[in-house]
Amino acid sequence: MNEPVQHDIQMGKDVGRLLLRCADRPGLVAAVSTFLAEAGANIISLDQHSTQQTGGTFMQRTIFHLPGLTAARDALERDFGERVADVFGMDFRLTEAAKPKRVAIMASKEDHCLIDLLWRNRRGELDMSVVMVIANHPDLADQVRPFGVPFIHVPARKDIRESAEQRQLDLLRGNVDLVVLARYMQILTPSFIDQVGCPLINIHHSFLPAFIGASPYRRARERGVKLVGATAHYVTDDLDEGPIIEQDVVRVDHRHSVDDLVRLGADVERAVLSRAVLWHCEDRVIRFGNQTIRL
Amino acid sequence: MNEPVQHDIQMGKDVGRLLLRCADRPGLVAAVSTFLAEAGANIISLDQHSTQQTGGTFMQRTIFHLPGLTAARDALERDFGERVADVFGMDFRLTEAAKPKRVAIMASKEDHCLIDLLWRNRRGELDMSVVMVIANHPDLADQVRPFGVPFIHVPARKDIRESAEQRQLDLLRGNVDLVVLARYMQILTPSFIDQVGCPLINIHHSFLPAFIGASPYRRARERGVKLVGATAHYVTDDLDEGPIIEQDVVRVDHRHSVDDLVRLGADVERAVLSRAVLWHCEDRVIRFGNQTIRL
Amino acid sequence: MNEPVQHDIQMGKDVGRLLLRCADRPGLVAAVSTFLAEAGANIISLDQHSTQQTGGTFMQRTIFHLPGLTAARDALERDFGERVADVFGMDFRLTEAAKPKRVAIMASKEDHCLIDLLWRNRRGELDMSVVMVIANHPDLADQVRPFGVPFIHVPARKDIRESAEQRQLDLLRGNVDLVVLARYMQILTPSFIDQVGCPLINIHHSFLPAFIGASPYRRARERGVKLVGATAHYVTDDLDEGPIIEQDVVRVDHRHSVDDLVRLGADVERAVLSRAVLWHCEDRVIRFGNQTIRL
Amino acid sequence: MNEPVQHDIQMGKDVGRLLLRCADRPGLVAAVSTFLAEAGANIISLDQHSTQQTGGTFMQRTIFHLPGLTAARDALERDFGERVADVFGMDFRLTEAAKPKRVAIMASKEDHCLIDLLWRNRRGELDMSVVMVIANHPDLADQVRPFGVPFIHVPARKDIRESAEQRQLDLLRGNVDLVVLARYMQILTPSFIDQVGCPLINIHHSFLPAFIGASPYRRARERGVKLVGATAHYVTDDLDEGPIIEQDVVRVDHRHSVDDLVRLGADVERAVLSRAVLWHCEDRVIRFGNQTIRL
Repeated sequence: MNEPVQHDIQMGKDVGRLLLRCADRPGLVAAVSTFLAEAGANIISLDQHSTQQTGGTFMQRTIFHLPGLTAARDALERDFGERVADVFGMDFRLTEAAKPKRVAIMASKEDHCLIDLLWRNRRGELDMSVVMVIANHPDLADQVRPFGVPFIHVPARKDIRESAEQRQLDLLRGNVDLVVLARYMQILTPSFIDQVGCPLINIHHSFLPAFIGASPYRRARERGVKLVGATAHYVTDDLDEGPIIEQDVVRVDHRHSVDDLVRLGADVERAVLSRAVLWHCEDRVIRFGNQTIRL
Repeated sequence: MNEPVQHDIQMGKDVGRLLLRCADRPGLVAAVSTFLAEAGANIISLDQHSTQQTGGTFMQRTIFHLPGLTAARDALERDFGERVADVFGMDFRLTEAAKPKRVAIMASKEDHCLIDLLWRNRRGELDMSVVMVIANHPDLADQVRPFGVPFIHVPARKDIRESAEQRQLDLLRGNVDLVVLARYMQILTPSFIDQVGCPLINIHHSFLPAFIGASPYRRARERGVKLVGATAHYVTDDLDEGPIIEQDVVRVDHRHSVDDLVRLGADVERAVLSRAVLWHCEDRVIRFGNQTIRL
Repeated sequence: MNEPVQHDIQMGKDVGRLLLRCADRPGLVAAVSTFLAEAGANIISLDQHSTQQTGGTFMQRTIFHLPGLTAARDALERDFGERVADVFGMDFRLTEAAKPKRVAIMASKEDHCLIDLLWRNRRGELDMSVVMVIANHPDLADQVRPFGVPFIHVPARKDIRESAEQRQLDLLRGNVDLVVLARYMQILTPSFIDQVGCPLINIHHSFLPAFIGASPYRRARERGVKLVGATAHYVTDDLDEGPIIEQDVVRVDHRHSVDDLVRLGADVERAVLSRAVLWHCEDRVIRFGNQTIRL
Repeated sequence: MNEPVQHDIQMGKDVGRLLLRCADRPGLVAAVSTFLAEAGANIISLDQHSTQQTGGTFMQRTIFHLPGLTAARDALERDFGERVADVFGMDFRLTEAAKPKRVAIMASKEDHCLIDLLWRNRRGELDMSVVMVIANHPDLADQVRPFGVPFIHVPARKDIRESAEQRQLDLLRGNVDLVVLARYMQILTPSFIDQVGCPLINIHHSFLPAFIGASPYRRARERGVKLVGATAHYVTDDLDEGPIIEQDVVRVDHRHSVDDLVRLGADVERAVLSRAVLWHCEDRVIRFGNQTIRL
């Protein structure tokens, strides 16, 4: 393939992503790859996973190059639905790499996760379109503005939760493909999660053993833990119990103060959240029951 | 210092370890180091820790070289008690590096932790004297015998717990300085722990989030965890809740089967347990409340 | 699929592995998966990689289940060659999961890598058939014999290299599918590597920056390195420069003595070598130029 | 100790740091700790290291609390010199925790290390006073200004090195305690290093095996490395060969593109450089020959 095409692919031009999930059975890979070959698409990469060696659920992520994808997309989607997905009982999703996801970031007073996402986005490491930052405190406005992203202050507390969520929904609904909770310290109701109409990704600290509730770092230090960590997950009605996307830890010891643990925990949190958002924006993460598969 | 002395120190000859703990106050380091200097001892290394910057608990581990230590030890211990420890209200312990701890390992059917300990001991990496292996199943006898360590089969089950523990106590009491539970799958009663007369170290798997009970690896996989880990801790009456000595994790993903998780978990377990036993045998671990300080 | 079949697959019965490599072009995945579907095989997993997004080299590893594989294998191989491989100019290899690789381990005086391989094999973690251990020193005979593996002492030194290699070749040629150099401290000549007729995997320590030659751990400590590591690679004529299969490191600091570095380095070496041998035995590693792709 | 004093210590008020280095001999710890006790200082923490168990070089870092330190400092320094340092032939340095180091950061076009340092400083994680950023390109001005730090553009290229270094020296000499090269891509001459009058810390990528020269990430990928890393070190006349302060690595595999390696490498670089600068600013790093000891 010639150089200009190579360059287009790197920019995401004419590159499609096909994600699918169905009951496992023979012939799936052949059916999908034959469809794509006949449509004139070249497979750039293909990853698949079965939850069991036989009889489980099959998931596949295929990246392909098809000249003129944007114009052809609707027809391709319809054809794939009729000729493949319906035959095998597949859920599927077809996206274009050149169309970044529209993302809202919700934050509170802590900057580490928020700034890491904005900074990676500006550097070109994290392909997304950050359409707004919603914060329940005004503190971070000055830090966000230089990134050229709207900063919207929506006060939120327990006593005004209903009206706050209504304002947030007015801002978000239909406007975003993903909401990232970047240390947004308020509980979101099941009603909000239901109505917002797109996935939400959250980050929380995690420890061995677990410390739920207030002052987790202080209690972790009192227990003498040797690792502190963070977990990024999709938000479900079960607070902090949704499907895990990514986890990581950092070693600590008795010489670390509570402040040190908070600082090291912040480093893990921002790294874990940024990886989870990156993988989601690259359509790598497939939900399956209460877990995720990263292809 | 001349070469023969250097060599003696490496062999632990004439090398003492002084561990102490007391309420923090000015002058502690000066008092201890002046005592040792006046006794003719040279400090090889000194590590200390205070639980708070002021007003907390002070702990110190001092390694020193004193020609003729074995002969002088009792007098040294008495003098230190009178001239330093009593003055500052210290708990202290004085050990000789040349006298390895007597260790019993309790095992069941799984070999990975047991063999790793015996193998490191044979290689000279882990200075201890393994005086017996007690197992509630006979399966590992052939694996243990080539290491030249007595293998004693004491059947143990829930219904014969009392008599089993009595036989174990008969073997252990007065004969060992440490009991290592190397995947010994039986519960030990508070009475046993109380009577055995020495510390016990246990290893258990650990996950984020935690899975307590049966089939933890299967449940961890169903939850889609990204890390599996292990925790080594001193045994207290609270099962699996004693002071943590060491923890570690290994990354996993959806491609790992339950068997893979078990295999990777075994690697972490043996590494973590071996490190914990090593540090204990080097007198590096000081207990403080429900945590440990590793100096 | 019913339970007995599920169990057969876990045992590797009727499970085939197809590895292939060719110039990338559209239609490859479709051609291979259609061939397998028509042959009655069910794809269990499929991993592929292209060295460039377009115009590079394409590699694929496909695991499939085909009842009666052993009987059908020769015909399947011939058909695939004619109908797919010849058409696309593919190199390919077809193996049966139920037929473990025959492996010889060459060692010297150090036991850590050798014992780790034998121990994982005995535990069932590392599916291979260890047909012999060849050592240029007799020291490890007693450690190897309990594993039920022949231990063959072939003295080897610089001055008798030619005759030693001839004896080793007499033992190995035609009898093994893989030679693992488990800290075998002798140089092997290009002539030996050429004649042995199977791949060789070697392990060596590695540092940042590199210390080539004698006493690497001493020099690493003098340089104050913060990481020590190990690299497992296929052996080529360029000593220690062959395609890398796996690498890892462990953190160290100024408190670690040279002995500590050697001990920690041994832990990394055995872990890295065991992973490399496991992946090779599972046909996961494809060589490409002077690198490897692990599918 | 009462609450106000506890708070003062956390703020660094009346907290001193004493670093010393001398030939090892008995009585050193006693002499120093007795001196401090007699001066009315309370030892908060004490770390020491000997390069050999006997006969080597002894290094110690002592953190102490002394009410009225700022006023008493000069006398304390003089007394310690006369009564302890001169007696034992010590090099020593006495600093006040409340007086942060004055730091200049030199950068070029890449932002990741520079921004991470400024951001941690603003968060209060990294106690230093950034007095200026000097860059040989104007690109990063807009990113630096919101941090309230002067951005000074000093064009520098091979052909104008002499005049550029002269301008840089005019800015730096006498004004800073540390220069951090945050991906400053120009060579600095031995003359500059000699005249600048303070330590310099540099960051560079590091690989196993090493790739020196242009396009290291491309060559690392072609070699199929499994780890990419970074090394922070003090600058000496030997380019990139000065005493190592910190190193770290991240795992990569064949699925990572060159862009991915650059991105992951940037994450390691900024983490490693920030840790090195933090430890230096806390007076934790002692140089010894061509290595560092971190106490």
